[in-house]
Amino acid sequence: MDRILLGHGSGGKLMHELIKTHFSPAFGIEGAGDSAFVDVPQGRLAYTTDSYVVTPLFFPGGNIGELAVNGTVNDLAVAGADPLYLTCGFIIEEGFLLSDLQKIIASMSAAAGKAGVKIVAGDTKVVNKGKADGIFINTSGIGVLQNNRSIAAAKIKAGDAVIVSGELGSHGVSVLAERNGLTFDPPVVSDTRALNGLVSAMYGASPDIHFMRDPTRGGLATTLKEAALESGLCIRIRDQSLPVPPGVKGACSLLGLDPLFVANEGILIAILEHAAAAAVVKAMKGHEHGKHAAIIGEIADAPAGMVLLETAVGGSRIIDMLQGEQLPRIC
Amino acid sequence: MDRILLGHGSGGKLMHELIKTHFSPAFGIEGAGDSAFVDVPQGRLAYTTDSYVVTPLFFPGGNIGELAVNGTVNDLAVAGADPLYLTCGFIIEEGFLLSDLQKIIASMSAAAGKAGVKIVAGDTKVVNKGKADGIFINTSGIGVLQNNRSIAAAKIKAGDAVIVSGELGSHGVSVLAERNGLTFDPPVVSDTRALNGLVSAMYGASPDIHFMRDPTRGGLATTLKEAALESGLCIRIRDQSLPVPPGVKGACSLLGLDPLFVANEGILIAILEHAAAAAVVKAMKGHEHGKHAAIIGEIADAPAGMVLLETAVGGSRIIDMLQGEQLPRIC
Repeated sequence: MDRILLGHGSGGKLMHELIKTHFSPAFGIEGAGDSAFVDVPQGRLAYTTDSYVVTPLFFPGGNIGELAVNGTVNDLAVAGADPLYLTCGFIIEEGFLLSDLQKIIASMSAAAGKAGVKIVAGDTKVVNKGKADGIFINTSGIGVLQNNRSIAAAKIKAGDAVIVSGELGSHGVSVLAERNGLTFDPPVVSDTRALNGLVSAMYGASPDIHFMRDPTRGGLATTLKEAALESGLCIRIRDQSLPVPPGVKGACSLLGLDPLFVANEGILIAILEHAAAAAVVKAMKGHEHGKHAAIIGEIADAPAGMVLLETAVGGSRIIDMLQGEQLPRIC
Repeated sequence: MDRILLGHGSGGKLMHELIKTHFSPAFGIEGAGDSAFVDVPQGRLAYTTDSYVVTPLFFPGGNIGELAVNGTVNDLAVAGADPLYLTCGFIIEEGFLLSDLQKIIASMSAAAGKAGVKIVAGDTKVVNKGKADGIFINTSGIGVLQNNRSIAAAKIKAGDAVIVSGELGSHGVSVLAERNGLTFDPPVVSDTRALNGLVSAMYGASPDIHFMRDPTRGGLATTLKEAALESGLCIRIRDQSLPVPPGVKGACSLLGLDPLFVANEGILIAILEHAAAAAVVKAMKGHEHGKHAAIIGEIADAPAGMVLLETAVGGSRIIDMLQGEQLPRIC
């Protein structure tokens, strides 16, 4: 049997075999109960969920499986939490290749290992051919907030520095390229990766980070606009400080895209006291996922809720959230 | 705008409006961060996930939304945990009616309120028309295990009693009927409901329940077979003790289905000391969701891993897990 059948989602014999042969060994899950039992250290928990519907399922630099692990790990990490446990829910289209499922599961297992989290519970549903698009994966995750850490837009203050941890646009461009059969020179590879190690390094340099978020769907622009609206302050960033790699720059100019709105998977923004920013950036540059970290702007009191981009020639452009959709099903 | 657009899943402006207008008020979620911050009482946690792909989305007695809440609440409850928090991930097909989404959200909110759990985080993805089937919903949930409760197949012992909390087959038959435009007299209505209150009543009668599970996909037969295999013991049940309501009996005989394999949503099985069984059944009968609770069989040492059904005429039938699939996309 080399393809997924409806019976694999029936709850019966085929599903038990699928779990026993493929999921349980990869994730180290024992038993067939629906709930996992987990011990968590004392402290508030961060709790999150994300579904992944990226198309194509395999793209330069990754696939839907590692994206589903890394994305949820990152949602916890930018909340200031140490990610501990994940669950995964698979919705699979009848006829899906078992060999592709195996690749995806292996990637998830490897990504979880790299991030130091454990996949503790899962669920598999199969829908009729034509009623899904290969596979959709939901992951949820819990993490613990150590040392009374808290991340909140309300903590952002005028004068704070805005840091971005790495280069913009690689994930979005890599998926778009794969979807359309384009190749770029230099090639653009997704930046999907877990950022919890980078966040630990940042907290090592400064215990009080006011705000973090990963600029995924909607890109950097949308995330900054969220921060401006939620804090009621103004974010001013400098065009020249934005780390856009040559491949992304070239692809975006060819395709008429703005790198500010292209989805990322392996970077975060952080907002914190200006006095601590240099030390935090230095710590980030010492981490493999923070080599391109940079201070890209500052927080101002007014105009409230606005994001302003200062251009090289001294002009200033108002940045809003993504309108409509630029690249659907990017994650 | 009365339909869901791709842009509602973009992470940008439309998605923020959808969340702000529909999801946040219904679930009482504040802020736009991806993670919720939750406090949990001390104790081990139970952690689970399930995706819901039922078709049709609306059926007699419920819809996919309340199913998604109740199903995950029940997975925690039968693990012996008090359900606390849920997350929900929506995968919506482009063109889905906003009014249907509103109905589903309202049902989820009501079901969460009834079960006493809080939906704390969510995610929305939109896929192109024809790439999903209306809406799929994933819920994950966490609950706390009070009083060192533990539920495990390893705790099942020969001589234990097997209890079922209510009537068999209503969910599966109601979905099947709706899907095929059939009506039965008496009508069959899904039994989707949260069982955590019933489980509390059971623990009130006996602190040591060895095993519980909700016989959803694959029906009672599959769940009993799981328990037999996981415990390495034999489960003997009596056909005459099984509570099959007249509507389900009629529909199953008409359609050639076996109620033992039909999916349920609002019942559980429990296995515990025989001496405590009568008191537990009495407590269950005093609860609105346990009126049809009954002792349906006992645990024996051998034949190991087997489920045997004693028929009215004194015969005995070997019960296995569901083979293939009987009713796909039942939950």
